[in-house]
Amino acid sequence: MSVFPFSAIVGQQEMKLALLVAAVDARIGGVMIFGDRGTGKSTAARALAATLPTIRVVDGCRFNCEPEHRDDCPDPCTNKRVRKMAVPFVDLPLGSTEDRVLGTLDLERALANGEKKFETGLLAKAHRGFLYIDEINLLEDHVVDLLLDVAASGENLVERDGLSIRHPARFVLIGSGNPEEGELRPQLLDRFGLSVEVRTPEKIDDRVEIMKRCDAQEQNAQKFAEKWKGEDAKVLRQIARAKKAIGSIKTSAKVLRDTAEICKAVGADGLRGELTLMRGARALAALEGDKVVTRDHLKQMAPLALRHRLRRDVLDETGSTVRIERALEELFG
Amino acid sequence: MSVFPFSAIVGQQEMKLALLVAAVDARIGGVMIFGDRGTGKSTAARALAATLPTIRVVDGCRFNCEPEHRDDCPDPCTNKRVRKMAVPFVDLPLGSTEDRVLGTLDLERALANGEKKFETGLLAKAHRGFLYIDEINLLEDHVVDLLLDVAASGENLVERDGLSIRHPARFVLIGSGNPEEGELRPQLLDRFGLSVEVRTPEKIDDRVEIMKRCDAQEQNAQKFAEKWKGEDAKVLRQIARAKKAIGSIKTSAKVLRDTAEICKAVGADGLRGELTLMRGARALAALEGDKVVTRDHLKQMAPLALRHRLRRDVLDETGSTVRIERALEELFG
Amino acid sequence: MSVFPFSAIVGQQEMKLALLVAAVDARIGGVMIFGDRGTGKSTAARALAATLPTIRVVDGCRFNCEPEHRDDCPDPCTNKRVRKMAVPFVDLPLGSTEDRVLGTLDLERALANGEKKFETGLLAKAHRGFLYIDEINLLEDHVVDLLLDVAASGENLVERDGLSIRHPARFVLIGSGNPEEGELRPQLLDRFGLSVEVRTPEKIDDRVEIMKRCDAQEQNAQKFAEKWKGEDAKVLRQIARAKKAIGSIKTSAKVLRDTAEICKAVGADGLRGELTLMRGARALAALEGDKVVTRDHLKQMAPLALRHRLRRDVLDETGSTVRIERALEELFG
Amino acid sequence: MSVFPFSAIVGQQEMKLALLVAAVDARIGGVMIFGDRGTGKSTAARALAATLPTIRVVDGCRFNCEPEHRDDCPDPCTNKRVRKMAVPFVDLPLGSTEDRVLGTLDLERALANGEKKFETGLLAKAHRGFLYIDEINLLEDHVVDLLLDVAASGENLVERDGLSIRHPARFVLIGSGNPEEGELRPQLLDRFGLSVEVRTPEKIDDRVEIMKRCDAQEQNAQKFAEKWKGEDAKVLRQIARAKKAIGSIKTSAKVLRDTAEICKAVGADGLRGELTLMRGARALAALEGDKVVTRDHLKQMAPLALRHRLRRDVLDETGSTVRIERALEELFG
Amino acid sequence: MSVFPFSAIVGQQEMKLALLVAAVDARIGGVMIFGDRGTGKSTAARALAATLPTIRVVDGCRFNCEPEHRDDCPDPCTNKRVRKMAVPFVDLPLGSTEDRVLGTLDLERALANGEKKFETGLLAKAHRGFLYIDEINLLEDHVVDLLLDVAASGENLVERDGLSIRHPARFVLIGSGNPEEGELRPQLLDRFGLSVEVRTPEKIDDRVEIMKRCDAQEQNAQKFAEKWKGEDAKVLRQIARAKKAIGSIKTSAKVLRDTAEICKAVGADGLRGELTLMRGARALAALEGDKVVTRDHLKQMAPLALRHRLRRDVLDETGSTVRIERALEELFG
Amino acid sequence: MSVFPFSAIVGQQEMKLALLVAAVDARIGGVMIFGDRGTGKSTAARALAATLPTIRVVDGCRFNCEPEHRDDCPDPCTNKRVRKMAVPFVDLPLGSTEDRVLGTLDLERALANGEKKFETGLLAKAHRGFLYIDEINLLEDHVVDLLLDVAASGENLVERDGLSIRHPARFVLIGSGNPEEGELRPQLLDRFGLSVEVRTPEKIDDRVEIMKRCDAQEQNAQKFAEKWKGEDAKVLRQIARAKKAIGSIKTSAKVLRDTAEICKAVGADGLRGELTLMRGARALAALEGDKVVTRDHLKQMAPLALRHRLRRDVLDETGSTVRIERALEELFG
Repeated sequence: MSVFPFSAIVGQQEMKLALLVAAVDARIGGVMIFGDRGTGKSTAARALAATLPTIRVVDGCRFNCEPEHRDDCPDPCTNKRVRKMAVPFVDLPLGSTEDRVLGTLDLERALANGEKKFETGLLAKAHRGFLYIDEINLLEDHVVDLLLDVAASGENLVERDGLSIRHPARFVLIGSGNPEEGELRPQLLDRFGLSVEVRTPEKIDDRVEIMKRCDAQEQNAQKFAEKWKGEDAKVLRQIARAKKAIGSIKTSAKVLRDTAEICKAVGADGLRGELTLMRGARALAALEGDKVVTRDHLKQMAPLALRHRLRRDVLDETGSTVRIERALEELFG
Repeated sequence: MSVFPFSAIVGQQEMKLALLVAAVDARIGGVMIFGDRGTGKSTAARALAATLPTIRVVDGCRFNCEPEHRDDCPDPCTNKRVRKMAVPFVDLPLGSTEDRVLGTLDLERALANGEKKFETGLLAKAHRGFLYIDEINLLEDHVVDLLLDVAASGENLVERDGLSIRHPARFVLIGSGNPEEGELRPQLLDRFGLSVEVRTPEKIDDRVEIMKRCDAQEQNAQKFAEKWKGEDAKVLRQIARAKKAIGSIKTSAKVLRDTAEICKAVGADGLRGELTLMRGARALAALEGDKVVTRDHLKQMAPLALRHRLRRDVLDETGSTVRIERALEELFG
Repeated sequence: MSVFPFSAIVGQQEMKLALLVAAVDARIGGVMIFGDRGTGKSTAARALAATLPTIRVVDGCRFNCEPEHRDDCPDPCTNKRVRKMAVPFVDLPLGSTEDRVLGTLDLERALANGEKKFETGLLAKAHRGFLYIDEINLLEDHVVDLLLDVAASGENLVERDGLSIRHPARFVLIGSGNPEEGELRPQLLDRFGLSVEVRTPEKIDDRVEIMKRCDAQEQNAQKFAEKWKGEDAKVLRQIARAKKAIGSIKTSAKVLRDTAEICKAVGADGLRGELTLMRGARALAALEGDKVVTRDHLKQMAPLALRHRLRRDVLDETGSTVRIERALEELFG
Repeated sequence: MSVFPFSAIVGQQEMKLALLVAAVDARIGGVMIFGDRGTGKSTAARALAATLPTIRVVDGCRFNCEPEHRDDCPDPCTNKRVRKMAVPFVDLPLGSTEDRVLGTLDLERALANGEKKFETGLLAKAHRGFLYIDEINLLEDHVVDLLLDVAASGENLVERDGLSIRHPARFVLIGSGNPEEGELRPQLLDRFGLSVEVRTPEKIDDRVEIMKRCDAQEQNAQKFAEKWKGEDAKVLRQIARAKKAIGSIKTSAKVLRDTAEICKAVGADGLRGELTLMRGARALAALEGDKVVTRDHLKQMAPLALRHRLRRDVLDETGSTVRIERALEELFG
Repeated sequence: MSVFPFSAIVGQQEMKLALLVAAVDARIGGVMIFGDRGTGKSTAARALAATLPTIRVVDGCRFNCEPEHRDDCPDPCTNKRVRKMAVPFVDLPLGSTEDRVLGTLDLERALANGEKKFETGLLAKAHRGFLYIDEINLLEDHVVDLLLDVAASGENLVERDGLSIRHPARFVLIGSGNPEEGELRPQLLDRFGLSVEVRTPEKIDDRVEIMKRCDAQEQNAQKFAEKWKGEDAKVLRQIARAKKAIGSIKTSAKVLRDTAEICKAVGADGLRGELTLMRGARALAALEGDKVVTRDHLKQMAPLALRHRLRRDVLDETGSTVRIERALEELFG
Repeated sequence: MSVFPFSAIVGQQEMKLALLVAAVDARIGGVMIFGDRGTGKSTAARALAATLPTIRVVDGCRFNCEPEHRDDCPDPCTNKRVRKMAVPFVDLPLGSTEDRVLGTLDLERALANGEKKFETGLLAKAHRGFLYIDEINLLEDHVVDLLLDVAASGENLVERDGLSIRHPARFVLIGSGNPEEGELRPQLLDRFGLSVEVRTPEKIDDRVEIMKRCDAQEQNAQKFAEKWKGEDAKVLRQIARAKKAIGSIKTSAKVLRDTAEICKAVGADGLRGELTLMRGARALAALEGDKVVTRDHLKQMAPLALRHRLRRDVLDETGSTVRIERALEELFG
């Protein structure tokens, strides 16, 4: 299957924003996508990955090593040849076990000649790219926990079966799920940086446009890709510029105070909410070419940063998004 | 058991239509058959497979390779001899495991001489044919998920136990089940292209005719096959013509708008409904020898493409089919 | 334990009829026996098997091969010597696994010398005889499913663990169970050809007669067998004659219409009901020495062929047998 | 622990009767003991086993072979030396698996040198003795089923893992359980020949006597055994005489009719009730030195033979024993 | 951790009495301790074990063999050297498996060189000492059952995996649990000889004293032990004297009758209650230096011997201890 | 990730106090932290560990042996070289098994050459440091039990698979969990020395300050660490002084009586409450440079020592902390 161009995705602004923000500042943590089936969740993530420029890796390395950081590689990573590869996009299969995710001892080799060799898992494959988990609520809790741990630390440490392997594993974690089919525990949700909600488009024109584009791509994927190449290149430049600018963006004390006020008002547990909101607003400012973070950036990012951190209020049936918007209205008018 | 001729099946128009459409355009995805036990669900699918002309494969190849595409074969597929084989029809046994479906490491060989050899699974056997799953609701979710993934991508990628094998696996996926005995999760249902409902025939004449034909086949299967050979050949030619024509069938903007209107009106979640309806109507036009897709094609295909994608409405007990027909009536008169 | 003579069984006409019909025409499918514990269900089946004449098999063959069909044997079946053996009667133990039923890889041999050898299962032992499953409702669904598949196709195909073995497995499948202790799923019940109901005899004279005969057999099994030898020989001749005659029995269009009317009237799901009723009535005609199938044959076989295929009607508490008899009465007077 | 003498057991007449009857005629099947904890259930069974004379076995044979029947032994059982051993009494441990009961392949030996050797299970150890199962309701159903099968056929047939072993396994099966802690399925209960109910003794004198005897045995087991030796020898002679006489005891047609009347009156399912009652009454007559079975024998054995075969009657809360006694009263006055 | 001296335990008279009684007469069976967490249950048992004089064992023997009974050892136990060891105190870990308790085949050795070697379990380690099971209600039933079997017989018989090992395993079994966290089945409770209830001390003076003593021990365990040495020596002599005297203590018929009356009055199921009460009262008489058992001894031991054997009476909410005391009051005034 | 300085943690006084007290007197047992997600629970523990001075270990030793105590090492620990290492901080992964925690047999080595080698577990790694368990309520009970056992005894004893290894394992156990997501059993909670409650800070100024500090650390971790170095050094000196002083702190009889009164008044089960309160108050006195324990120390430590030991009172909904504070008020005014 050829990948759908990122720019050709109709609507779904919030999902695209979250992906761009995560691409600019990896410390923001993963993105959780809630929503209807068949709304292009994995298509968007896959498209963004395909849009990004190829990366340079040591040829033959099982860990996607950057030639400049081959010292972090647990293998003797001495190959002088460098090759280019597309940004990895790893789709975690339903029912994946801890072994398959983390990597494991190569049992056959161990039995055959007693040699302990690490067999890489999906985390090694996802290094420097994206790890996508559809229906994350169906994954076992301890696997989600472990994925979030690695995503947060950027490093996979496997100490089992007499193995002790440490390899870099930096990736954007993207989970998706339909809240109607069971939820993640709040502890786990909290560890995702951002969350977005996607719905089936309401407008007939959008739906017709989607059919046309899908059909066009099916008829001739290459021609279709060609047509959207320019738009995708713009996105690419926007990300690159934002990554460079983010270090010098100012976040005033007033903006920090606003951030804390919002989080307190909506009743987000813990401190990850305000930290993420601060970082997200800064990344957004960078994407929009601004030099300072403003209240507008906060307002735009607040639903994405806080929606999944609200305590259920049994007396208030209002959805999370509405509660956040109401709080923003009350605080900032 | 000798196979029953496709043309000799009495009634069951909707099921036969779905199978023909799926045979014409594989991108439509699998067919889900809901219905009573003993109504010939597997008979029809098996019959269609037997009707199709034999395929040419590299002799001795475990992956049913086309001689023209032997480069996709993970084995060294160098045999010059070509043999003909019937279109494969694989019946997935109840309780099949992931290993059996995907293929797995040949453990004996690995233990005996340390050699890692891939042992093909049912997906390899089904390549270029049909994969039939009776009582699909009894299969574990993650196996269904995986089957739908492979059916959609046309390729089976096994990365486990130190193996990394990729082989083509293009097949028409046909599932059947009785909704009274438990349902598939909506997420999985949505990924089937079409669905049909079959019932025990109501008319005594039909039932007598069925007994007569079954009895005739049991008495002398060869003679019975001979009798229906001509009819089956017609079906074969119809499919062949439709496959050739489908690329040039026109789908007007108005028809696309109609498609979106129907899907919105019945409240199908996501966008797979309209994409499938568009493709299905086009395949139907091709089967009927038409040059353009019309509203009539849409009306005929809508129940098949949308029935399994409707959201349950607790206040409206009406069945899915009725709701779709009502919506068609309201929209198009 | 010596076997009880078939003719010495007191009462239980319906059960004996079903076993005879199944012995005449194997295509009718298995027989399901519902009923009280301790009513001689397995005794009757075992008795019929013992009554049948010995069969000729290739000496030493693990698959009970007929000397005339040794080509179907998966082993090199070249032994010239032929031996006679009693018709096999295999009792499936409670809790049997798929491996034990189907056969499996001989693991020890595989581990020891890497040779893949098929270890036959219970299906191979039952070939050309009877497979009896007491309390079939306690067996796992997928094992029942698999037994019914093999019983229908007459062939056991094992494709696992790198094995690919196909061997003939033609047998009369007999299941028994007490509906009060949990039921088979309707999907599985439907695949049994006939069903019968047995009860503890009501008449004191019958019960005394049963005690006398059991006691007599226990005291001197040989003498008892001798006494009933003549009666059993008659049964044997009746079966043999019926098997020869069945091919030329006529089934008029009117009788087929009657068959369909009965099935529709009682509301049997699917078409297996009428096909089995047609075949069962024909086998009965053959057993009774008639040349054509009549309404009387239909009436006698209808409860056996349809009882287990009726849809539960929550508003009508009447038992299946009564509903069938009422329908027969209304239709044919 | 030294065994308590059978004759020294205070009270518990019904339990002792059942054990004696089972010792006289093994075809009666096992004995199920219902009752309070701590009432000496296993003590009584163990005592009876110890009372019986030693048996002669082939020295070193793993199957307790009689020297006269060494042909039935699956091992090469050629040792000329004969030794005497106590009647085996095997206590089935809670949570015993099928492997442990039936015997299994000696896996170590198979792995080490590829030799398939049968490792005997508890059934081989129990041959020619007693198999006692405390809290039988906690055993898995399929293990109980299998024990009852072997107890009925007198032979253990193991066909698994490429083994095919058949060895004699004749024993008196004794199960015990407290109905308040869960029940056996009726199907399994029915296959026990007799059942008895034991309770904590009501009379103070009995209880004091029991304490005295237990204390005396604890103080000096040898002296205590000496004291009861004479009584135990009488029991032994009574059993021996009854075994010899049972073949010539008469059971009149009238007694058979009485038997059937009782079983019908109490509503016992199936025919095992009357067969067991007939055999039990005959064994009792033999124990009491009578030449013919009388109504009194029937009356005494009826509760033991029928109690566990009664259908629950939701409208009649009366216990099984009372219902049987009432029926006896009504029939025979 | 150094052990707390037995005499330094503040209060908890009933628990200390039960431990002393069990130390005097092992036939009384285990002691079950019910009660609050943190009340020194294991401390007391451990303290008693440490108080007892060292035992003499064959040096290097895995079964703690007495030099005088080395014939019972399953190993070739020929070492002439004898060593002294502390009375073993084994703490059964939560979640212990049957293998770990009983001992098991040394699998590595079996696989490596085909030699079958028994690897001892916790029962071998506990021989001649104490086996303590905290939170016994969390252990699996069949493991408790097995522990009680071995405790009763004094011998561990392992017949599995082709092993047949028998070794002595005499120990005082001590279980503890909080009845609020789930109970043992009555069948298992009944097999404990005695039970005691412990509570958090009520008196402030006791609690201060406990803190002082714990603190003193923590500051200087050796000095603390020194201080209590004398008291502990007295306990030791009391036990030794009682063990010698117990054989000659008289139990009058009147006392036996009293025993039976109590047990009947409180409604204890089975006969273990009166046997234990008789033995316990005798051991108490021995500990107190009396020559005959008196009603006072009975009264003191009755709650310990009967409390855990009472049937729940749904109409009488009174606790077991109160019911026993009331019955004693009514009977003996 | 670089560690956050302990002194830079804003607020959370109670949690910091508990960690300091545990660092001063290890006998106090573990610390259980209840509270909201995202409140820096693991950050604080990790920070304290990083603040402590490096420890000296035998170079290459798998058990973090002190050079002065190499005799306790189960390995031949003869390396003369000594290296410095940071105080270990081990994070127990969710779903850790007993094997991984305790250590286990090195199976590969055992299979390859029959050598039994102990593979160290997480307990060995945590020796002389901290063991942190996030969401301890998700760990299996028997693993928690085992961790508490080792934490209490300071030693890990592994006796399984034919191994018998004992190695020192002294560490501060820190568990955290959200009581809304399931609780530890009271038995296990009781074995934690102290417990603290943490909440999301209420004050906006605190929240802004936290964001600033986190941001500052993220921008330049080294500079941030430099800034707090002085404060951290003070903490270090405070701990060192307290450790030296604690042996000579006086605890008057009156203070012990107060301690018992408090524990009785709040109704703490068992005696661990008062022992911990006594020890905790003493450690607090030492930290504050006092020579004697006062009522103020008791009052400050009481909630930490008793909160998790209170019995639920169904009629009193008041939280544990409030109940303790009320009791302190009533007793001491």
